[in-house]
Amino acid sequence: MNDKLIIFDTTLRDGEQSPGASMTRDEKLRIARQLERMRVDVIEAGFAAASNGDFESVRAIAEAIKESTVCSLARANENDIRRAGEAIRPAARGRIHTFIATSPIHMEKKLRMTPDQVVEQAVKAIGWAKEYTDDVEFSAEDAGRSELDFLCRIFEAVIGAGATTINVPDTVGYNVPEQFADTIAALIERVPNADKVVWSVHCHNDLGLAVANSLAAVRAGARQVECTVNGLGERAGNASLEEVVMAVRTRRDVFGCDTGIDTTQIVPASKLVSGITGFPVQPNKAIVGANAFAHESGIHQDGVLKHRETYEIMRAEDVGWVANKLVLGKHSGRNAFRSRLQELGVVVESEEHLNHAFARFKELADKKHEIFDEDLQALMSDEAITPALEHFRLVATRFHSETGETPQAELTLSVGGQETQARAEGSGPVDAAFKAIETVARSGGELLLYSVNAITTGTDAQGEVTVRLSRDGRVVNGQGADTDIIVASAKAYLNALNKLHGNAERLNPQV
Amino acid sequence: MNDKLIIFDTTLRDGEQSPGASMTRDEKLRIARQLERMRVDVIEAGFAAASNGDFESVRAIAEAIKESTVCSLARANENDIRRAGEAIRPAARGRIHTFIATSPIHMEKKLRMTPDQVVEQAVKAIGWAKEYTDDVEFSAEDAGRSELDFLCRIFEAVIGAGATTINVPDTVGYNVPEQFADTIAALIERVPNADKVVWSVHCHNDLGLAVANSLAAVRAGARQVECTVNGLGERAGNASLEEVVMAVRTRRDVFGCDTGIDTTQIVPASKLVSGITGFPVQPNKAIVGANAFAHESGIHQDGVLKHRETYEIMRAEDVGWVANKLVLGKHSGRNAFRSRLQELGVVVESEEHLNHAFARFKELADKKHEIFDEDLQALMSDEAITPALEHFRLVATRFHSETGETPQAELTLSVGGQETQARAEGSGPVDAAFKAIETVARSGGELLLYSVNAITTGTDAQGEVTVRLSRDGRVVNGQGADTDIIVASAKAYLNALNKLHGNAERLNPQV
Repeated sequence: MNDKLIIFDTTLRDGEQSPGASMTRDEKLRIARQLERMRVDVIEAGFAAASNGDFESVRAIAEAIKESTVCSLARANENDIRRAGEAIRPAARGRIHTFIATSPIHMEKKLRMTPDQVVEQAVKAIGWAKEYTDDVEFSAEDAGRSELDFLCRIFEAVIGAGATTINVPDTVGYNVPEQFADTIAALIERVPNADKVVWSVHCHNDLGLAVANSLAAVRAGARQVECTVNGLGERAGNASLEEVVMAVRTRRDVFGCDTGIDTTQIVPASKLVSGITGFPVQPNKAIVGANAFAHESGIHQDGVLKHRETYEIMRAEDVGWVANKLVLGKHSGRNAFRSRLQELGVVVESEEHLNHAFARFKELADKKHEIFDEDLQALMSDEAITPALEHFRLVATRFHSETGETPQAELTLSVGGQETQARAEGSGPVDAAFKAIETVARSGGELLLYSVNAITTGTDAQGEVTVRLSRDGRVVNGQGADTDIIVASAKAYLNALNKLHGNAERLNPQV
Repeated sequence: MNDKLIIFDTTLRDGEQSPGASMTRDEKLRIARQLERMRVDVIEAGFAAASNGDFESVRAIAEAIKESTVCSLARANENDIRRAGEAIRPAARGRIHTFIATSPIHMEKKLRMTPDQVVEQAVKAIGWAKEYTDDVEFSAEDAGRSELDFLCRIFEAVIGAGATTINVPDTVGYNVPEQFADTIAALIERVPNADKVVWSVHCHNDLGLAVANSLAAVRAGARQVECTVNGLGERAGNASLEEVVMAVRTRRDVFGCDTGIDTTQIVPASKLVSGITGFPVQPNKAIVGANAFAHESGIHQDGVLKHRETYEIMRAEDVGWVANKLVLGKHSGRNAFRSRLQELGVVVESEEHLNHAFARFKELADKKHEIFDEDLQALMSDEAITPALEHFRLVATRFHSETGETPQAELTLSVGGQETQARAEGSGPVDAAFKAIETVARSGGELLLYSVNAITTGTDAQGEVTVRLSRDGRVVNGQGADTDIIVASAKAYLNALNKLHGNAERLNPQV
């Protein structure tokens, strides 16, 4: 059997479907570039037919990415597939991933189609997709609750029609490993043309078993795993890329295959996704949690000192954990700044962008003695908002709070290029700042989440704030970084408003 | 086979060994009470011989808990076991859990003992433990890398000596489910007196497989799972209690057993542990993550609307997710306050304590219109610091920050009952506040972590801040809550200092 396990990353599609994890096109591009750097085999860039915004994101990623296959999801209908085909057209290697539900409950209650109609529709879908690319993946939605006979029938039909990857999702996260492995083994054995395709799995984590189910399927013959960075995804998420990759690598004796992933890019990818979505990674998360490689108890420490191998099965450096490096200070020049960004894999789009970022770096260096890699990443993350989208901008701030008085904020904002003053009181200075902004913006947005990324490098570290706003069913995340947490909060709120403002004109949902 | 699965919670022992998760005795007591309310069968309260502080914590929990068995860990030596026996003496049901390493690498490199010596020592340990309780558990440390023949030999010997539970840990998280299940099945089959004990497993999550390995062992005959709330624990943590419990319950068809857990107490337990340790729960965490029961994508939402069962395998209410309830306002009286606390399971130690908390509640109600359950929990969490330990206390604050000026903080602190002024500048107002406090406290503590719990209920919500300080190898967490994030930060810093100050006189590590 083939010993290459294909890693199909769906952070930008299934991951982005997490409530609150929606991303702008630029954010998706930054993540796609990191996935390419990590040598992910297939990047599922989105669901092109979902909206014009989704279409544009998939297309932009197809244009930018050269090393990984770029894939778009599409329901098994002609319009969806043609949109997906158009979106991936610029890709060096493009894939269309089409799906239809195959469980009795879904066919009856959701699709309202007979099994015969479902097979016919699936075969047609493969035909449309083949007009755009040879690389076509077919998924049986809710396969975990589908009848095995019917799965064999529909898979045989779509393989006959030219599908090259067959994906078996556990859509509701209901399976347990042994059972799921039995299903995969039975399918591979019973589908007559099974050897013509790569078998894939897509597991959800509702019972905490997404990784275990994926790995059990690999032992049963699956050679593609669909997964996400940090296990992001709807509800409890998908199988976590980092856990699947490191389990297969660490236990090659058991799995008999390996991935092409550059594991040293795992932790940077985790931090990037966490920063953009505002979803924290818990310290006890396997591989990418802050404590994943830390040992506390005296007993274990003693063991570690006596013989490293007693407690370590992986090395922190292998997955990209590096000591927090002091890199730059207030006397560092523009070239040092630029080359450190390159080492960190941060892409600076233009000379103008670099100049702007460097000016912001100098401001930061005035406030903070030592600039760490994390500071640069926060700064560049903040910087990634292109000026064109900056309808609202923070010019100056003044805050005052005192026991017995109501906290006050006075802000100078630039709104569409015009400076204006805003002032408000609140239950705290952050509340006052947000209320002051709303006296000018009148966005009507509802605050769903306010969070501050954990700070681990001293009291003068930058605070990175995420603000999540909702309006008319749309949810956006804003980020802001500053050594002053109130300023960072105001920036994050304005960033979220800019996204609401910018996207309102661009998105045009069709489903 | 018995259809009762015993849930052994080790949040207070293995969970507390996470770097940064150390807890005070009072914090451990609050968690123990919640575990009892959740009907956990066995609470591992600590490792009595580790220090006087650990001993006192185990003893206090043994005194307070009536429904659950209270257990102390002990190495297989006479001193450890006698300390454990003394600590659990007040318990209605007490257990001693003794362990020794059984893998060749550990016996040789760490213990420097021959296999014969290890068996002899283990049998002696059971004998000492039996002087204190009939309920004795034996663990083979690093069983996952031990030889099966040797495990059979040592288990037969300790069962003969009177052990009633045999625990098989995967200490380094190296196993995969099928393999681990095979080990458990082989042990149960080959150990001649296997039917006299309950078989238990303790899995670590380094490869993301702790829950899957535990569940595979249950299918192979294990009837106790050692786990922690939120999967807390060293490195990537232990098997997560909520995932194990809900997998067994949801897939009773597969596992053929169930637990006695009151699942509606799962989310409150998760929030309590997260609040006390300052370890956030990521939104995509199974069962207890904020998104675990949220559906985003149009396709899925459509499915949910058409037929609830299409995507739901568990109900959010079954695990204790409830709508955020408006409970109290500024006109609520003392009795309403007291009875709501009782409903939330918050124990108020004395009338004086209640009066103090009620005064704080009134202050909060002046600043914030609507007081939710979460606000009460934050307030009481803040309140849980007994006045005796409050060496440092915040009396009044004054903050000012303005673009172009250095942020300033002026604080009035009470230090050992004496009011004193403190003033400092910083790179932001939080930095200024911490520096002002240090001009007075001169603790020499190093800030390891500053985090703000995500706020999800509007801009005037209380900020809950966690500050982690380290001094001379000791790590403490401080918490503070306020509608003003700077005030909450100052309170959290002072809370951490109080713990450093209080504990310095109390703890006396012996290992």
